[in-house]
Amino acid sequence: MSINLGKLFSEAAAKQKASPIREMMSSAKKPGMISFAGGMPDPDIFPLDLFAECSDIIRTDGKTILQYGTTDGYPPLKEFISQWTAPRMGKTVRDEELLVTSGSIQVADLLNLSVVEKGDYIITESPTFLGTILDMYNHGANLCGIPCDNEGMIVDQIPGEIEKIRSSGNEVKYIYTIPNFQNPVGCTLSLERRKKLLEIARNYNLLILEDDPYAYIRFDGEDLPTLYSMDTEDSVIFAGSFSKVLAPGVRVGWCAGPQEILRKMTVFKQGVDTSTSILAQGLVYEYCRKGHLEKRLPSIIDHYRVKRDVMEKAFQQFLPTDSVNYTKPQGGFFYWLETPEILTDDLFEKAVEKNILFVKGEPFFPNEGGKHEFRMCFSFPSVEMINEGVRNLGTAMKELL
Amino acid sequence: MSINLGKLFSEAAAKQKASPIREMMSSAKKPGMISFAGGMPDPDIFPLDLFAECSDIIRTDGKTILQYGTTDGYPPLKEFISQWTAPRMGKTVRDEELLVTSGSIQVADLLNLSVVEKGDYIITESPTFLGTILDMYNHGANLCGIPCDNEGMIVDQIPGEIEKIRSSGNEVKYIYTIPNFQNPVGCTLSLERRKKLLEIARNYNLLILEDDPYAYIRFDGEDLPTLYSMDTEDSVIFAGSFSKVLAPGVRVGWCAGPQEILRKMTVFKQGVDTSTSILAQGLVYEYCRKGHLEKRLPSIIDHYRVKRDVMEKAFQQFLPTDSVNYTKPQGGFFYWLETPEILTDDLFEKAVEKNILFVKGEPFFPNEGGKHEFRMCFSFPSVEMINEGVRNLGTAMKELL
Repeated sequence: MSINLGKLFSEAAAKQKASPIREMMSSAKKPGMISFAGGMPDPDIFPLDLFAECSDIIRTDGKTILQYGTTDGYPPLKEFISQWTAPRMGKTVRDEELLVTSGSIQVADLLNLSVVEKGDYIITESPTFLGTILDMYNHGANLCGIPCDNEGMIVDQIPGEIEKIRSSGNEVKYIYTIPNFQNPVGCTLSLERRKKLLEIARNYNLLILEDDPYAYIRFDGEDLPTLYSMDTEDSVIFAGSFSKVLAPGVRVGWCAGPQEILRKMTVFKQGVDTSTSILAQGLVYEYCRKGHLEKRLPSIIDHYRVKRDVMEKAFQQFLPTDSVNYTKPQGGFFYWLETPEILTDDLFEKAVEKNILFVKGEPFFPNEGGKHEFRMCFSFPSVEMINEGVRNLGTAMKELL
Repeated sequence: MSINLGKLFSEAAAKQKASPIREMMSSAKKPGMISFAGGMPDPDIFPLDLFAECSDIIRTDGKTILQYGTTDGYPPLKEFISQWTAPRMGKTVRDEELLVTSGSIQVADLLNLSVVEKGDYIITESPTFLGTILDMYNHGANLCGIPCDNEGMIVDQIPGEIEKIRSSGNEVKYIYTIPNFQNPVGCTLSLERRKKLLEIARNYNLLILEDDPYAYIRFDGEDLPTLYSMDTEDSVIFAGSFSKVLAPGVRVGWCAGPQEILRKMTVFKQGVDTSTSILAQGLVYEYCRKGHLEKRLPSIIDHYRVKRDVMEKAFQQFLPTDSVNYTKPQGGFFYWLETPEILTDDLFEKAVEKNILFVKGEPFFPNEGGKHEFRMCFSFPSVEMINEGVRNLGTAMKELL
């Protein structure tokens, strides 16, 4: 049967953007392969026994968590999130301002479904998270990427881009940012720029989607206030996640935002998946209620700090440091490397020969870029693998210089 | 802040369609209320202990089920589904023809996201399931409803409608059907009509979405072959669910379909929610692997058959039978009642006074209809509640005649 599937433009985009990740995933399973690719937590610190014990909630509240539930989330979990996030949110988020989602990635999907019409623009960091830009394409959006430096997105460039888009007769629907330990760059948006970004959103009457999955994985320095907490105009939707502080397989995230928009996203979610797995929400809640989340967080941070430090040291020891640029991230899962004299495609090929995987830069760029850049994840591989892998990566680089 | 949220057309539609359900949900919690509204399984037969024991898989395979997983599903669960559904599918569905989804409702969402452009038409039964038509509206689709009788959708009316839509310059993207124990009508598509429907799809080069969540809840009569098993043209996407045979709170469903379309839906799902909760998939798999699903199915069917029979008897005993039309469903969760002399709005008001809830007919209709019709769910209330509720409903009806 040959049917018109429609949306071929987005399929093409999807294929182009999705394939490097699938390529990674399958290569990562080859024996002996050291993967710095997928941005995955370390399964060695998953709390298997503690989490398994939380399944008691199936016996105590199973008639609720196995039944259909309200679309906005399992009420006890919403209550926990509201209390737990209050310091970062600058307030106790009210029930009608909070929506539990199937991972924080679904926040972007629901926002796209709710506000994006084909041809609308979304402003993003460039480079940025592959998963959300894939979904933006799939909803028919055009992306306008703003470059980043060590202080995050160069927000001064936004107004000019908005003017250009508007004068071409198109609409900008929102600004997407990952302010802390950005994926893939690892940079953090400075306080000054946070203020400016909010000012720009106010001036141009735009929403901001603040995607903050790495917030709690900070190794050094002080937390900066969230855009959400600094917002006085009901313009920020904040997306959070249990993926990095507990486990991604639960697929539980949330968003906080203005009631009007959240209500709309909730109505749309009803038709998308009815609700996020109540079973998963129940187990996550039980884990949080027992205090495990907060108790284990410091050791999770320590665990990843060690890996970051091992990678930093290995870079200094094994890479041809004159030919590679990178900045030590203050948190999160990633280093972003630039090799001005080496094409990433060439390096990738060499690296795979040496059983090393990373993610090439190009797919992270909403428009152009990434030919000399790539992402290295330090959260997943063991300390031994980081050392061995970076040594081999260094050899590969040197062979190309 | 006042921003252009866009898609207001769909918000209006969403509000209109979603509100009766939300109204139900909140009324259902009033003390003393007997609800025949929400199409929920009976939580009294949820296998709390058996399912809690399945959490052992968190200890044995937690490093997998708590980690990010492949978008298409947890491989052991896919393997189980493929084997378990083989008799109904007419073959062992291959891995690349199978996608695990966040409830079967997500199958429609992913298909809409993959193929529907604003203004495209979808052909549905009229009336049909509220959740999917809500999502169709939200993706900008127009709906064309085809009436049903006791043999299901009157498929002979489809070609004329397709011709009309095409001659107006629009496209039909697919035909949506719930062939067994349809929600809300309870009817089952006859074998003759199944054949005709496939012929129509072939002649007009259209996809069919076969939504079959109630398939296994058959009380009387013989299973009819699925459209999927009779399809020779790669035109059918089959959607299945664990909601009715295990529990809806897990939010695990699946679809089987042509590889090309499934691949596209999988790529789109990657941006929507990365994957369905692997934790939930793992627990569902463990439950199935231990044989509980198949072992418990006969008693689940018996449990709901008793309720259907109690409702049938109560109808005969308490309703003014000359003034109400209904057909005994062979399976599923619902009766559909028509009261030619009574407006459903009036009956609803009277019923709520008497602490009875049902779902009004109107929101189920994609175009017009339902002013004298309503849905009664027998799966959720207890036998005592069915008797008491139907008695009060009969009183309410008689007061309006």
